[in-house]
Amino acid sequence: MRLVGRIVIRGGLVVTAADEVEADVLVEGEKVVALAASGSVEAEGWTAGRVVDASGKYVIPGGVDAHTHMELPFGATVASDTFETGTVAAAWGGTTTIVDFAVQERGRALREALDGWLGRAAGGCAVDYAFHVIVSDVTESSLREMDRLVDEGVTSFKLFMAYPGVFLSDDGRILRAMQRAAGNGGLVMVHAENGIAIDVLVEQALAAGRTEPRYHGEVRRALLESEATHRAIQLARVAGDAPLYVVHVSAREAVAELARARDEGLPVFGETCPQYLFLSDEKLAGPGFEGAKYVCSTPLRPREHQAALWRALRTDDLQVVSTDHCPFCFVGQKELGRGDFSRIPNGLPGVEHRMDLLHQAVVDGRVSRRRWIELACAAPARMFGLYGRKGTIAPGSDADVVVYDPRAEQTISAATHHMNVDYSAYEGLRVTGRVETVLSRGRFVIDGRRFTGRAGHGVFLPRATCQYVN
Amino acid sequence: MRLVGRIVIRGGLVVTAADEVEADVLVEGEKVVALAASGSVEAEGWTAGRVVDASGKYVIPGGVDAHTHMELPFGATVASDTFETGTVAAAWGGTTTIVDFAVQERGRALREALDGWLGRAAGGCAVDYAFHVIVSDVTESSLREMDRLVDEGVTSFKLFMAYPGVFLSDDGRILRAMQRAAGNGGLVMVHAENGIAIDVLVEQALAAGRTEPRYHGEVRRALLESEATHRAIQLARVAGDAPLYVVHVSAREAVAELARARDEGLPVFGETCPQYLFLSDEKLAGPGFEGAKYVCSTPLRPREHQAALWRALRTDDLQVVSTDHCPFCFVGQKELGRGDFSRIPNGLPGVEHRMDLLHQAVVDGRVSRRRWIELACAAPARMFGLYGRKGTIAPGSDADVVVYDPRAEQTISAATHHMNVDYSAYEGLRVTGRVETVLSRGRFVIDGRRFTGRAGHGVFLPRATCQYVN
Amino acid sequence: MRLVGRIVIRGGLVVTAADEVEADVLVEGEKVVALAASGSVEAEGWTAGRVVDASGKYVIPGGVDAHTHMELPFGATVASDTFETGTVAAAWGGTTTIVDFAVQERGRALREALDGWLGRAAGGCAVDYAFHVIVSDVTESSLREMDRLVDEGVTSFKLFMAYPGVFLSDDGRILRAMQRAAGNGGLVMVHAENGIAIDVLVEQALAAGRTEPRYHGEVRRALLESEATHRAIQLARVAGDAPLYVVHVSAREAVAELARARDEGLPVFGETCPQYLFLSDEKLAGPGFEGAKYVCSTPLRPREHQAALWRALRTDDLQVVSTDHCPFCFVGQKELGRGDFSRIPNGLPGVEHRMDLLHQAVVDGRVSRRRWIELACAAPARMFGLYGRKGTIAPGSDADVVVYDPRAEQTISAATHHMNVDYSAYEGLRVTGRVETVLSRGRFVIDGRRFTGRAGHGVFLPRATCQYVN
Amino acid sequence: MRLVGRIVIRGGLVVTAADEVEADVLVEGEKVVALAASGSVEAEGWTAGRVVDASGKYVIPGGVDAHTHMELPFGATVASDTFETGTVAAAWGGTTTIVDFAVQERGRALREALDGWLGRAAGGCAVDYAFHVIVSDVTESSLREMDRLVDEGVTSFKLFMAYPGVFLSDDGRILRAMQRAAGNGGLVMVHAENGIAIDVLVEQALAAGRTEPRYHGEVRRALLESEATHRAIQLARVAGDAPLYVVHVSAREAVAELARARDEGLPVFGETCPQYLFLSDEKLAGPGFEGAKYVCSTPLRPREHQAALWRALRTDDLQVVSTDHCPFCFVGQKELGRGDFSRIPNGLPGVEHRMDLLHQAVVDGRVSRRRWIELACAAPARMFGLYGRKGTIAPGSDADVVVYDPRAEQTISAATHHMNVDYSAYEGLRVTGRVETVLSRGRFVIDGRRFTGRAGHGVFLPRATCQYVN
Repeated sequence: MRLVGRIVIRGGLVVTAADEVEADVLVEGEKVVALAASGSVEAEGWTAGRVVDASGKYVIPGGVDAHTHMELPFGATVASDTFETGTVAAAWGGTTTIVDFAVQERGRALREALDGWLGRAAGGCAVDYAFHVIVSDVTESSLREMDRLVDEGVTSFKLFMAYPGVFLSDDGRILRAMQRAAGNGGLVMVHAENGIAIDVLVEQALAAGRTEPRYHGEVRRALLESEATHRAIQLARVAGDAPLYVVHVSAREAVAELARARDEGLPVFGETCPQYLFLSDEKLAGPGFEGAKYVCSTPLRPREHQAALWRALRTDDLQVVSTDHCPFCFVGQKELGRGDFSRIPNGLPGVEHRMDLLHQAVVDGRVSRRRWIELACAAPARMFGLYGRKGTIAPGSDADVVVYDPRAEQTISAATHHMNVDYSAYEGLRVTGRVETVLSRGRFVIDGRRFTGRAGHGVFLPRATCQYVN
Repeated sequence: MRLVGRIVIRGGLVVTAADEVEADVLVEGEKVVALAASGSVEAEGWTAGRVVDASGKYVIPGGVDAHTHMELPFGATVASDTFETGTVAAAWGGTTTIVDFAVQERGRALREALDGWLGRAAGGCAVDYAFHVIVSDVTESSLREMDRLVDEGVTSFKLFMAYPGVFLSDDGRILRAMQRAAGNGGLVMVHAENGIAIDVLVEQALAAGRTEPRYHGEVRRALLESEATHRAIQLARVAGDAPLYVVHVSAREAVAELARARDEGLPVFGETCPQYLFLSDEKLAGPGFEGAKYVCSTPLRPREHQAALWRALRTDDLQVVSTDHCPFCFVGQKELGRGDFSRIPNGLPGVEHRMDLLHQAVVDGRVSRRRWIELACAAPARMFGLYGRKGTIAPGSDADVVVYDPRAEQTISAATHHMNVDYSAYEGLRVTGRVETVLSRGRFVIDGRRFTGRAGHGVFLPRATCQYVN
Repeated sequence: MRLVGRIVIRGGLVVTAADEVEADVLVEGEKVVALAASGSVEAEGWTAGRVVDASGKYVIPGGVDAHTHMELPFGATVASDTFETGTVAAAWGGTTTIVDFAVQERGRALREALDGWLGRAAGGCAVDYAFHVIVSDVTESSLREMDRLVDEGVTSFKLFMAYPGVFLSDDGRILRAMQRAAGNGGLVMVHAENGIAIDVLVEQALAAGRTEPRYHGEVRRALLESEATHRAIQLARVAGDAPLYVVHVSAREAVAELARARDEGLPVFGETCPQYLFLSDEKLAGPGFEGAKYVCSTPLRPREHQAALWRALRTDDLQVVSTDHCPFCFVGQKELGRGDFSRIPNGLPGVEHRMDLLHQAVVDGRVSRRRWIELACAAPARMFGLYGRKGTIAPGSDADVVVYDPRAEQTISAATHHMNVDYSAYEGLRVTGRVETVLSRGRFVIDGRRFTGRAGHGVFLPRATCQYVN
Repeated sequence: MRLVGRIVIRGGLVVTAADEVEADVLVEGEKVVALAASGSVEAEGWTAGRVVDASGKYVIPGGVDAHTHMELPFGATVASDTFETGTVAAAWGGTTTIVDFAVQERGRALREALDGWLGRAAGGCAVDYAFHVIVSDVTESSLREMDRLVDEGVTSFKLFMAYPGVFLSDDGRILRAMQRAAGNGGLVMVHAENGIAIDVLVEQALAAGRTEPRYHGEVRRALLESEATHRAIQLARVAGDAPLYVVHVSAREAVAELARARDEGLPVFGETCPQYLFLSDEKLAGPGFEGAKYVCSTPLRPREHQAALWRALRTDDLQVVSTDHCPFCFVGQKELGRGDFSRIPNGLPGVEHRMDLLHQAVVDGRVSRRRWIELACAAPARMFGLYGRKGTIAPGSDADVVVYDPRAEQTISAATHHMNVDYSAYEGLRVTGRVETVLSRGRFVIDGRRFTGRAGHGVFLPRATCQYVN
């Protein structure tokens, strides 16, 4: 990891959510200090310990992945990426901030959850990190804790409408949490699937001998995602128009609920993930037990849902693309569900490929270059109170900067990826565009396609409240 | 109770859901045998033991009230009308069929519930009656019982999304019941309010000292009715487009959900009640404890909801007007909730006034004369498998016939009504139109404003399945 | 044509829009006098000059076809059915009332138009007939005439948003006509297509050498039907919520506009036709010049529109099925448009097959038996002020009665049909159900599959105003 | 007008559509060259001929007003601001770019229109300007000219659905223009009101003696705005999803049409104006002839429409706030319509107050600071192909920079405004926020509340095509 005092990134096209500018970027210490028109006397006058030649390249803000699960315990197993392996992979993919989830156990304090996760992450991260808290147990005590956590910079709280008996909060508990968030500025995130109805369908499928991975997709009906999405929105209205962020939206009917709410001016937001944009339920029906690799919840949907997701990304009915990165190896982990799809650990690896896949969408004409940066950097930063410091390149922002080669080609493969997982959900996919160099707070983490970072460089980020509503 | 062999009802305007005809009606035994144009040789040739002069009057089918609760246990008390007093009052109001509810206790069989209620009704009813069954406990066993009950003519089953810990079925149980009904032809009825969220608001209101009756209306938010309505519709879709009937719809937002579902062609139906059409939440905020008289669930809504209900009755987005008749005396019953609105027995008296109030809507130009008969007679009969026998006047139909004076005026009052309850929800309301004579299966129950019926005349009606979908 | 004094139709299932009753029907002179339960002493006691055995058959009201164009001049040619041939064919198909169109020429009076058409029809019709008036020239004078025509029983007026330079009225003229109708009780019918935009596409298609019949369907874009439908609805609102009836709806997007308006309670109605329900644009692309047989406006749509039309017929977002019967022979008439689709006379034959095709829909489970009668008899009668006399079977109604064999099979073909046109749009289609006997005002027109009627039996029917709104 | 070589704007909060940064801005010649963190060594090291102290102030891009009508002929009169007086007023209000309209006369070339308007503007403008072209006469020749104008940087074309006989293009002409624009990258703007229907209502109002200004608002029905908006959208779809920009949206029903189209992903855009956001139809009903001051089309709407407009500005269903600046003096101009509201020249003054009124909306919490800049600067620049050069502050952008005092208070009044018109539509309105200093391409036009610019400084701006779609 090299600290080089002043750095100039020269001759690239600086792309932010708003602007595309031919400018040189001056970094000093951990911050961006100045931007000047490339070739201007001003820019040419800059001296630096290191000059990065970005001509022909994009200079973009480091990616912000607002949904990862490193080292997540899931039933008898645990997600295969540690904070170290996961953040190294993130860096390789141009992502310099992750927001992970601390998980409250029932009967324990939120604080205990947060402390536990802070401990796991401490000293291991190659890039900066923050935490949401998963609230499994809404009680008077945990509601009070929410206030304190907001004050300390943990400003978002995830509740589950799925997974009865594990994470599910009933509508009363969700309502209480939303009321509290409406008061303390916190943002409630929900996993919106009607888990109680789904469990009936799971039981019926298994009883009927439908045990293969593809039934995972069939029982988790799109209508049960949109139903829960609608319900969450109504509860948020009852809670006093509390802001609401729906994670991993995959069904077009759910998108329609969000669009309707947003048309009415409600502070309702949604995220989708690359897997829903690029993969479909055909993967779940793959040969043998291959489908297990694609088991995640919400599930992959039939291909015709993708158009609705892309459209919503363009119309801003969805604001954020995160990965929901939660890797489990096929061997030994996904295999736990042979003979019973409901025992397959839920989750896909992806933290390394988000920036590239979305750039491919630029190449394919699905979103503009600026919208790419908005979806992957600016919007998640704003949503979770990091904007200004993260998500843009401007005087005073953190020097999380990626030099991106828009013409390089690469093939995604488990053979070459850096995530600690034995398969790739995008194996063999050829994409155009590649990260070349990555700065995290002024340090070179990736330097010309070599990893030059280190575990422990990343720091915990206290966050402001949601910058879309506060 | 007089049996007079052949009866001719002469010179009235016979109004059914489809036709308005100047015809004489010939009754023989329990049945309508023939209709003939008034004044025709044919009609004039009829001889009969009794000729009723209906000139200047309407001759209409006896009303079908598909939602009553006679003798319903509610907490520590019981609804104040017995099957006898309630059906006598019904007859006075021109209603000749009620469909009441047998209530399953948790852990007991549906059969036991039905047998219990059949026992209560037996020998007491002045007009015919049938039963829905309230399913409080969805188990494999009660699902199997549903099949048998459908075969025996009990073809509709009510589930609650409200009243946690008492009647509430969770979404999984509702889904299972809907799946079963989709298979056996049964019709699932739901009380659509998100009871779990409401209970949070109840608790918060009471904790804040908001204990008066009007808070009953405030905590039972319209959005929590429409949310549950939406959810019930989605569950019905997941169950294979199972037919669904939503009881006592009161919120315009709930109407909108029904309208949307019906536009998509789904077999979704809705009922509203006179109290939602003629009364508003101002009643709940009456002086002293007066508001308790108007406590029912769903609650009375602000006046602006009424226009949406009337419109939906015209556009057929609501199909049925029932009463949800469930009377509790103010003294000694409603008073149980002094100091805590959540302890006020839920329910209003109304079985006697439905036909008159809807006729007033005809007078006011809100619905047509034919639509009056459709809403109050034909549609409830069709919905619950009684049409042909009940709900119309045609050769072969039961001789449930009302001679209705469209010009008589009356004032509704507890002083004159026949229901066993010490107040009227419509006290002092002046309406135009009045029942004059009522036949039930060919017997005079009301004869020129005198009660000539008897307890025990009414018989239990096995029903076919819903005639809108089967 | 045989007049037989009293007729009894015995043992059939009498089906109306509301009821299905096993009853005998007694006809005396031109009227239905009585219905009595089959087998009852009453019914058995009836004596008559003629007893029709209807056992195993349906006894239904004669059909009302609210949209026909007999002898319509179209450019250089004229529709091939005269009032005589057309009404004979109607009778063969169980239709006993047609409502045809008198066409105002620009610069001439509405009265003149009506007188002309009354003259053409006089003495020629085998069944009863009425007229709408096509208003081509909205002037102060023709607006005043509308009032008088309503008084005389011509209560509906058609305006065109298509056919610039011929029939098209601009939005100001349509608004004026709607304002007038809102005042005098008349019903404005519109042909809703944006003819001005279509003419641009026609010109461009022809200029590009796209001259075959299928381009007729392509240029008359579904969006240009739904646009005009939306516009007509808005103009009706501006005119003071004037009632509006949209003819020959074929595009699902247009259906959606009607559904939206009806959800809002607006007095907006729509008709579709069998050709849109049973045929698709594939016919327009038939070999050689065959497509010309299927040229009508609005055009046949892609097959996926049909589901929306059927659904709307079930949800009552469309109320009426008419034929828009307007036949042109292939040889010598349709051929006028060889080399230029815009010169093909617009119209299809159909008056003979509407009742059968809709019965096929009953057989196929698309609509119920009662809805069949509502769509084909009761609703068009109500819409155009004929109900009570036409559209039902009840004491006092005209004795327009059809004995229909629901099990007979037939194959539709030009070789066997009775319309004066050299092809059938449904050539070779096999359907279940067939008209057996037809009474028109008490006279046998079809008697056991023999034509026994006569030209001149039919009389002109003055009509009341729309019975859905007045 | 002072040219001072290098300028540094120091210590302000630089606000753009995306970022809020404490940065110093370095201007060299006509361009912004660099931004550096305030207080950084880098920034402190900058030397300049002039340093502007912006501490405590906002540093924002110069406003872009995409809808003005300087010197517009209107009937017998002409808009009272010349390009000189109008652009001086614009500068006073912080607007440094206007896009005005060249008006084609029927039978004349677009080129002739553009040349005429270029001539009027030449040498007179105090800030930069561009032109849209109003197409009054869609012919093969003017369609061809559209291609050439796009190539020359006149990339947007306005068509009227209002003003029959003057500007109105029928739907066929609009369709042709949209088809052309879909091919050449041009953007079609429409004035969306159904002028033909409105003219009927105007004629009826005048005939009934309703001649006062308030009837201007009544006849121009909101439904006739939304109808035309819907129609324009459908025509754009038929034209191949041609991009569409609807000017001066004022009715909530029209907003709903735009929102629906945008939810479907259509390239449909909308602008509203400060008068619709801050004024209502009560103004039109002012005493005496005062209402004439507020006559513009679309008209001021009832107050309840405002909430829908504000919401749409937040949800991005409306993207741009322009002024439609078109001033007529009360004396001698507005007075032409005494006794006949239809003769009142249509238009309001406003170019000077747009930035301040929208800042007031920031103060009132209606929109965020960044959204203020997006609505007033960035979005209009992007919409009309000027972004990068105009609408932002970034290295390489034009040095159109406003130092804005967010705490200064002012009262809007004709006594103090700089527009050449004898009244203010906002007379007496007190607002917080005021322009202090304005640079246009690096020249001081307003310097500490003194005008230091000159007529002729402004240059004509050739534009790229719409940056939202191309």
